[in-house]
Amino acid sequence: MKRREFIRTAGISALVTSASGLAPVNAKAEFRWKMVTAWPKNFPGLGTNANLLAKMITEMSGGRITIKVYGAKELVPAFEVFDTVAKGTAEMGHSGAYYWKGKAEAVQFFSAVPFGLTAQEMNAWLYYGGGMELWKELYAPFGLIPAATGNSGVQMAGWFNRKITTVTDLKGLKMRIPGLGGEILRRAGGTTVNIPGGELFTSLQSGAIDATEWVGPYNDLAFGFYKVAKYYYYPGWHEPGTTMECLINRKAFNGLPKDLQAIVLAACKAANMDMLSEYTARNNQALDTLINKHKVQVMPLPDAVLKKLITLSDEVISELAAKDPMAKKIYQSVSQFRKQVMQWGAVSEQAFMRARSL
Amino acid sequence: MKRREFIRTAGISALVTSASGLAPVNAKAEFRWKMVTAWPKNFPGLGTNANLLAKMITEMSGGRITIKVYGAKELVPAFEVFDTVAKGTAEMGHSGAYYWKGKAEAVQFFSAVPFGLTAQEMNAWLYYGGGMELWKELYAPFGLIPAATGNSGVQMAGWFNRKITTVTDLKGLKMRIPGLGGEILRRAGGTTVNIPGGELFTSLQSGAIDATEWVGPYNDLAFGFYKVAKYYYYPGWHEPGTTMECLINRKAFNGLPKDLQAIVLAACKAANMDMLSEYTARNNQALDTLINKHKVQVMPLPDAVLKKLITLSDEVISELAAKDPMAKKIYQSVSQFRKQVMQWGAVSEQAFMRARSL
Repeated sequence: MKRREFIRTAGISALVTSASGLAPVNAKAEFRWKMVTAWPKNFPGLGTNANLLAKMITEMSGGRITIKVYGAKELVPAFEVFDTVAKGTAEMGHSGAYYWKGKAEAVQFFSAVPFGLTAQEMNAWLYYGGGMELWKELYAPFGLIPAATGNSGVQMAGWFNRKITTVTDLKGLKMRIPGLGGEILRRAGGTTVNIPGGELFTSLQSGAIDATEWVGPYNDLAFGFYKVAKYYYYPGWHEPGTTMECLINRKAFNGLPKDLQAIVLAACKAANMDMLSEYTARNNQALDTLINKHKVQVMPLPDAVLKKLITLSDEVISELAAKDPMAKKIYQSVSQFRKQVMQWGAVSEQAFMRARSL
Repeated sequence: MKRREFIRTAGISALVTSASGLAPVNAKAEFRWKMVTAWPKNFPGLGTNANLLAKMITEMSGGRITIKVYGAKELVPAFEVFDTVAKGTAEMGHSGAYYWKGKAEAVQFFSAVPFGLTAQEMNAWLYYGGGMELWKELYAPFGLIPAATGNSGVQMAGWFNRKITTVTDLKGLKMRIPGLGGEILRRAGGTTVNIPGGELFTSLQSGAIDATEWVGPYNDLAFGFYKVAKYYYYPGWHEPGTTMECLINRKAFNGLPKDLQAIVLAACKAANMDMLSEYTARNNQALDTLINKHKVQVMPLPDAVLKKLITLSDEVISELAAKDPMAKKIYQSVSQFRKQVMQWGAVSEQAFMRARSL
């Protein structure tokens, strides 16, 4: 198949390589790709992961693929990333799957699910538990190939100006919390509002909202929320290991020789490892700064509140699973995996981390 | 150094590979490398990670590098992997850093430390906390470049035929537990024995030993320890996130063009992600089989026992840090990182996993 094209490409590549030295990498690019992203250009952690992915692919291919990374709104707005890559206007995208629930409800299982999988567990499900196959099946009708390319780890529950002591404190709480987490909060009696990231600080300050979730210490410290909110609550029950996705236009991917296809997919896997490491290291430093320099009050959500949120979360996710046959199929896979991996986590990571703190 | 030997070996390797008739790909190989490993060929998880690493490099390079993987004893014994790659007889090695404490005591910080870092934390330290730079510095005098290429996650404390209820139950305990964990057990009054993996089953069965640690459910199930031991204890305090290393001969690495150098390092990072995912998924399934099919009694080490082991562990690791200036420098970096990352883990992964189980 496509043998002529392969040979032609291989021929060019051989010339390029033997001529190489190292130099004018861009001059010899065989593939000039665009990557549209759902993040502001160079946004710490998210935008920089997109940059890293592009850089790795270009370096590993010796410049045979170059990838120009566009921040949100530079080429298209954040919420058009999916369609733009599906159409082939850009060959790649970098985003979070939960943005595309208008395309298929089940996409949400591939980003973050309240009380779902941690980063380590999510990657285990994707790479060794059947998750990737289901994700590919879900995106196939759109002409897209998905890959996991980053993870934030467990996020924080958010910044609050109201103390959460009992379940009733959630009633009337005005919070910025999108997605499934927002639906759960509404069922607990809260009100959710949709405010762009850039306006969160002033909304907290003016009292227009009582609370907001964002990401975790690394990103939250940069936004300065500690200046306008009293309490920093944990854990981020609504996003326990948010996966970043790389979207690849299938025709563009199929047009690559096998070695470049392998490079693109391996780069995503390496970038996936990289981002979780970055967040773990930087959240770690930032939390220390928040606690010791800015004297932030870091508070645990009470067990009774968490239990209520678990009950509501089970409701919401069961409804999601009932929306269509694909959602049901994915739900069955991930919930079976979750049940077993919780049993394993209880005697491994969780038990060890507890033991280490004795 | 040893240039004649290097050339001779490379020549033999070229003949062997071209005679093997694997594919047209091999015919155009520019670099024919050998990878010696510390594991039996194709050993699940460890040997297969070495295979995966070699395969990824070959695929991404379009066959420009081929890597022949040797199991332990096929080319050299497990404990000669380091020297073999240092000399350049093989260009790559796949092993665990703690095997090389005869070269430098500090190597142990790059595999597993009792009550140390989990897999996620270890990768954060290596990639974003200064760990990789220190590891490179430690291996530089040997002409080696290290890379992390896999992680087992938290291991299990092991299989026991004696119930551990109090600290005194450790006295006289005859256990197979190597390395720093073994030293700690000896200080707690136990006796450690060094028995090859293949003899552990009969040693447990005959009563020659009271206990053994191995890896975790995935590997332990295959060894059948559940047939000859009463209790399966957790958590694996002695190896909370064991890192696998890829050793690369520096001259060989420097002889690669930049694109192939990038491929080799990115492949290690992707393989690192892959192995942890594999262990998480397979430990998860295997634990379920052990509990539900084989009715294994999975037991927590009592807090008092863990506390005693923590105290002894602090002793042993402080002594290790005092052995030489490099050990001290690495210890300072990792222990500062550990202190902060424990604070972050307590409000993220640990708090979330606990909340999810309420």
